[in-house]
Amino acid sequence: MTLACPADGRAAAGRTGPARRLGIDTGQEPVVYLHRDSLVVRSEGFATETRIRVSCGERTLLATLNVVTSPLVRVEEVGLSDSAWEGLAPSEGEGVELAHAIPLDSLGLVRAKIYGKRLGAEDFEAIVRDIAAQGYSDIQLSSFITACAGGRLAHQEIVDLTRAMIRVGTRITWSAAKVMDKHSVGGLPGNRTSIIVVPIVAAAGVLMPKTSSRAITSPAGTADTMETLAPVDLDLATMRRVVEREGGCLVWGGRAHLSPADDVLIRVERPLDLDSPAQLVASVLSKKAAAGATHVVIDVPVGPTAKVRSYEEANRLGAHLREVGAAVGLQVRPVLTHGAQPIGRGIGPALEARDVLSVLQGLPDAPADLRERAVLLAGHILEMAEVAEEGSGEGMARDILADGRAWLKFQAICEAQGGLRTPPAAPFTHPVSARRDGRVTVIDNRRLGRVAKLAGAPHDPAAGLVLAARLGDKVARGQPLFVIHALSPGELDYALAYAESADQIIGLGET
Amino acid sequence: MTLACPADGRAAAGRTGPARRLGIDTGQEPVVYLHRDSLVVRSEGFATETRIRVSCGERTLLATLNVVTSPLVRVEEVGLSDSAWEGLAPSEGEGVELAHAIPLDSLGLVRAKIYGKRLGAEDFEAIVRDIAAQGYSDIQLSSFITACAGGRLAHQEIVDLTRAMIRVGTRITWSAAKVMDKHSVGGLPGNRTSIIVVPIVAAAGVLMPKTSSRAITSPAGTADTMETLAPVDLDLATMRRVVEREGGCLVWGGRAHLSPADDVLIRVERPLDLDSPAQLVASVLSKKAAAGATHVVIDVPVGPTAKVRSYEEANRLGAHLREVGAAVGLQVRPVLTHGAQPIGRGIGPALEARDVLSVLQGLPDAPADLRERAVLLAGHILEMAEVAEEGSGEGMARDILADGRAWLKFQAICEAQGGLRTPPAAPFTHPVSARRDGRVTVIDNRRLGRVAKLAGAPHDPAAGLVLAARLGDKVARGQPLFVIHALSPGELDYALAYAESADQIIGLGET
Repeated sequence: MTLACPADGRAAAGRTGPARRLGIDTGQEPVVYLHRDSLVVRSEGFATETRIRVSCGERTLLATLNVVTSPLVRVEEVGLSDSAWEGLAPSEGEGVELAHAIPLDSLGLVRAKIYGKRLGAEDFEAIVRDIAAQGYSDIQLSSFITACAGGRLAHQEIVDLTRAMIRVGTRITWSAAKVMDKHSVGGLPGNRTSIIVVPIVAAAGVLMPKTSSRAITSPAGTADTMETLAPVDLDLATMRRVVEREGGCLVWGGRAHLSPADDVLIRVERPLDLDSPAQLVASVLSKKAAAGATHVVIDVPVGPTAKVRSYEEANRLGAHLREVGAAVGLQVRPVLTHGAQPIGRGIGPALEARDVLSVLQGLPDAPADLRERAVLLAGHILEMAEVAEEGSGEGMARDILADGRAWLKFQAICEAQGGLRTPPAAPFTHPVSARRDGRVTVIDNRRLGRVAKLAGAPHDPAAGLVLAARLGDKVARGQPLFVIHALSPGELDYALAYAESADQIIGLGET
Repeated sequence: MTLACPADGRAAAGRTGPARRLGIDTGQEPVVYLHRDSLVVRSEGFATETRIRVSCGERTLLATLNVVTSPLVRVEEVGLSDSAWEGLAPSEGEGVELAHAIPLDSLGLVRAKIYGKRLGAEDFEAIVRDIAAQGYSDIQLSSFITACAGGRLAHQEIVDLTRAMIRVGTRITWSAAKVMDKHSVGGLPGNRTSIIVVPIVAAAGVLMPKTSSRAITSPAGTADTMETLAPVDLDLATMRRVVEREGGCLVWGGRAHLSPADDVLIRVERPLDLDSPAQLVASVLSKKAAAGATHVVIDVPVGPTAKVRSYEEANRLGAHLREVGAAVGLQVRPVLTHGAQPIGRGIGPALEARDVLSVLQGLPDAPADLRERAVLLAGHILEMAEVAEEGSGEGMARDILADGRAWLKFQAICEAQGGLRTPPAAPFTHPVSARRDGRVTVIDNRRLGRVAKLAGAPHDPAAGLVLAARLGDKVARGQPLFVIHALSPGELDYALAYAESADQIIGLGET
């Protein structure tokens, strides 16, 4: 109670109890389990859903209380969920201290935002600091994300939110004057260009230390796909060694504590299936700035079922990205691309990795759309880096890919990261076929993504689907439209049931 | 899997396992605990935070999964949290069936609302139906509540939301043509007029079957306060008997399944400390309509730290209440009242009950403000019921209170509900005193409410505080401003620490 009652001499002594790992995975929200007859619950008046400050040595975190009414934990014990255990890292039986969480003042700012008030730089800094410190419960995070969605943040608010997210966390610095990065806004399954772009750019002698995220609402993030090809969970020192040796890397950004508030927000965005433009701008740019980038090319796919639905929306988002980028010291070049259908054939980490490999290796059946998209984006990066004239970047990128330099560089990067791997294959597959003759007139990226997720992606890297038809293709009744891949019959059934019941995942018109 | 895969003959057999009550109180969100090596987790690809449909006989609910990595549950067992156990009501070891939750289509409507789309009657019905069926996780509920807050629902949307909330649940009917009800918008601690109004109105021969809620964001709801005076957790049949005999009742509405979606929403509004006007109108009116009311007086306290801050806002809310009421068949009369300071002296269930008793019993030290407020509201109800002329209701109400008829009626109602009780008293008390001489110029209702909550109210009915100074009072340095009541030294400390550190809970100006 010392922490909670600094002003009061009558504060009870710190309540401690021996820690016990209960082995319950509660996701990222830390949970503390206390017996209802424990001294702490009785004397401090703790009830279920109370937020509790838990300390072990120097480490402190905020957790949600579940009161236990059975002998699951002993009266004197402090039961911890897996995430609480990992956050506190006690030895088994070590004493941990419990105190009421000090009420978070920044929640008042979230409430003000809900009621339409405009927040300032200090407001966002207070909110982001509390979020990064794990102070918000999932319910509170959900409210903050929703309050900022749907165009409710003004331009300056997005700048302030982004700045706050950069400031709260590590910021990497590189010795080069120009550090390139890229990002794709997503919503387009299979759009795994980064894994091709980085080796092209690095082979041209331009620094591109790429950190990627895992999937938020999609069936695969670049880090998920890359992980089927090489280790991506590198610490900062190892990442530096890779970049010094090869001029580029393709790693998961989670270990580096770049914009840690973003990592916390993502855990709630995922079950909400919500990734709003303001949050998107702040999330992308804070990660890039924290990773030490100076120049960023951003692929904005536009299509009726992509994340960005119209060119107006894409231009607005592009302008946002450029302006907020400039305000936080990043030169941003948005590149609008076609987003009517998936890129490549595979959807899901390993299935996308196979497409990427075939492009890098220059195989004859490599998906042309993935290759062309990667060459386009790499070309823009080479131009921003001023190693190619404006207008000639794409040609230079195409040469580096065609003559095998990119494939050599990719293998070298994978070796430096810990060794090239072969993507896993799923044991269960089943086709979804056309119910009649017709021509493919529409592909619903969101529903297709959902099928891949129901099949197990990205949790199971081998799960997902492989497209067998593209826009404009003529198909005959009974011909496969796509093939679902899954690790278990249950998941295969679940994805199939959804695929069969949902209309218009792949829409057929008259031939 | 049969439920999730109706279209597919290859669906796995229903996965079942023996139920086990783990004795973990997770609040209202049902949680299922499955071992990571269980057939279900392995073959169906379930991961922590997956939404799972759990069935036991005819009963089905949606729960959130926590994967267990220890011997806490056996591989074949299905561990259930207290709320999941109560919802399914299995025998110990009875087989429960597990299936993937069918994706909720109504979440797409919530997303549309976040992005500013206007929703229709069918949209709200779909959302409310899924919410009442416990289909939404806490994160999703939080997002829906936030998306509807801050003036983002149009008038017709509030009407449609209210209608949907009435339709999904029980609707009580009474034989009388006029059924009176009242509600207070809240934000004003100690405003427990209902417990005085009901016996006055019932004593005048007018039907007033009052269902009340427990506290959402306040230190006490009317049901919490009434519960310290008599049982309030009555089933519908018992409530009918009470009303038939006495013409009125004061019960908790939770058992009657009136607007069950509202009960679900409240569980998230509470930790969010958020109770938006649109949600408020839908919540209040759906409960009143479902309870069978035809006429409703609504007390709208206005004050700088009450829920409603200005008369403009109060008039807007009043108009909303009247218009939405008319649209759903309720005659609503909003009554704007002063909300600059708490009503009565006690804040917290038992302490407020003592004030109520002293008014009903006509004791000389009874708080005059509470008595006057109750008489005012009862007067409006008697006028709406047409047993008093317009303008003479207040006088009639005052007579019924003064001559003891209301007190007799109150005792009769309590007897019918199960017997009059004496409110409990807290063992620990401590005053918070003025730091200097001065005159009370401002009282912060929100912060005062927070002190009472930190002291343990409403969870501990005896906890809270008793005001010792009111607006305009002259106080000397060291003189008590209020006295905190708590059940444990820990809670007393916590409330005191907050009371001492927060400025301006009771503000003093020059004398």
